[in-house]
Amino acid sequence: MGVIGASEFDVATQVAADGSAEIRAGWDIAGNANGGYLLALAARHLSALADRPDPITVTAHYLAPGTAGPVSIDGTVLKTGKRLVTITGSMRRGDRTMLQVVGAFGDARLGGSDVSYDALLPPDLPPFDECVERTATNGPAHVPLMDRLLVRIDPAHAGYQHGEKSGEAVMTGWFAFADGRPMDTLALLLAADSFPPAVFNLHLPPGWVPTVELTVHVREQPSAGPLRCRFLTRHVANGMFEEDGEVWDSAGRLVAMSRQLALLART
Amino acid sequence: MGVIGASEFDVATQVAADGSAEIRAGWDIAGNANGGYLLALAARHLSALADRPDPITVTAHYLAPGTAGPVSIDGTVLKTGKRLVTITGSMRRGDRTMLQVVGAFGDARLGGSDVSYDALLPPDLPPFDECVERTATNGPAHVPLMDRLLVRIDPAHAGYQHGEKSGEAVMTGWFAFADGRPMDTLALLLAADSFPPAVFNLHLPPGWVPTVELTVHVREQPSAGPLRCRFLTRHVANGMFEEDGEVWDSAGRLVAMSRQLALLART
Repeated sequence: MGVIGASEFDVATQVAADGSAEIRAGWDIAGNANGGYLLALAARHLSALADRPDPITVTAHYLAPGTAGPVSIDGTVLKTGKRLVTITGSMRRGDRTMLQVVGAFGDARLGGSDVSYDALLPPDLPPFDECVERTATNGPAHVPLMDRLLVRIDPAHAGYQHGEKSGEAVMTGWFAFADGRPMDTLALLLAADSFPPAVFNLHLPPGWVPTVELTVHVREQPSAGPLRCRFLTRHVANGMFEEDGEVWDSAGRLVAMSRQLALLART
Repeated sequence: MGVIGASEFDVATQVAADGSAEIRAGWDIAGNANGGYLLALAARHLSALADRPDPITVTAHYLAPGTAGPVSIDGTVLKTGKRLVTITGSMRRGDRTMLQVVGAFGDARLGGSDVSYDALLPPDLPPFDECVERTATNGPAHVPLMDRLLVRIDPAHAGYQHGEKSGEAVMTGWFAFADGRPMDTLALLLAADSFPPAVFNLHLPPGWVPTVELTVHVREQPSAGPLRCRFLTRHVANGMFEEDGEVWDSAGRLVAMSRQLALLART
């Protein structure tokens, strides 16, 4: 518990060398596995096939709900470069593709240049214990995933829990594992899809907002402690919206950026 | 000329039913075809295979430089849904994969919800003719692509052309075709990669900044006229950076959002 390799998250992302794996119960929203968890499960196998530690940029298309049970993950290396290994793969159950993934794996300390530039600041959050818990039961759906995680939302964005929507599609807060597992780059894929959708703070009819596609860029190997996260949606139209995520580690470094395209519930 | 179907862009993105195509000369930067052009060429074939008009979200990984010459494009439909058809494919020459693509195609007027929300405004640009031309020869590399396009940069961001870098990784301006071709959703894939990199306005050593991965979300079918574009980079570290693009049509609607991960030249 709380150690990389032996934590709940590590057990739930185990993949045999032949790609056999299992979507574990308890990482779901109303019975469907969280998209970040599914991406982490697939990426762990692809990272092993690529023989590179970090998912530098990974994209998943979500094709079928990830109910608990056995799956097989396959991957094909497309290019082995000096800095990056590019690989495509999928997660299947029988003849059904649940997830299609393409990614470039490498070492997030890539280097080759000393240039740095930063136009983003981490969200200015209240302390962890003064933020509002996202629990399995305090949102519009039952989210067992929240028994595995400690997601703590800035009170300014948590009003959706009792129908007080801010009208701004922003959600910020803290992310950690319930069992104290330290962060690594695999955990960032989960963090990128672990918050309530930022659109929950808009005056929308409630409903499932399925992810079509999620891309995560991993920019650093994070330090061990809790992550600061910001999620925001800037444009909703034609029944779809994007959600951008920015994730900082406990040392204040931007460690991941994510973007997903999702569909609004039909009204 | 200037008509969808008969313009330079349409000729350069022709693909036979069996996937045979040609990377045309003249769409390149220093001999390597522009990444947006390559994505449009692949997406045109994938859209035909999917039998859906618009690339709603497409991701490309760039594996080898796209020099002019014959290529073959293949695609495999993964899922045919009511709103979206998901397809994966690649562009190859011989046994070399140049581009790996995954995308969801549909009709950008998807619908299913009347909700709209907008937290972004188009860039407040000077008129087209008061912006600064990006030509084939006025940047650090020879860019024949610019003989096909009319890219007009806000003077506030064009100083890089004569070594006066703003220090802010922002590039805004206008996009149109030199032959007057109207915009459509395929053209948005090109527009998303047609500007000088926003990092050209940082105090970097000059050099090639290869795209690892580009994702474009198409949010509307654009009206015919020139596009307003904003590109910005918020984080440069470990030899890599992201560039986000926002594209508005002549009716003032956000029609596309893009993000790419690119590598800095080694120093």
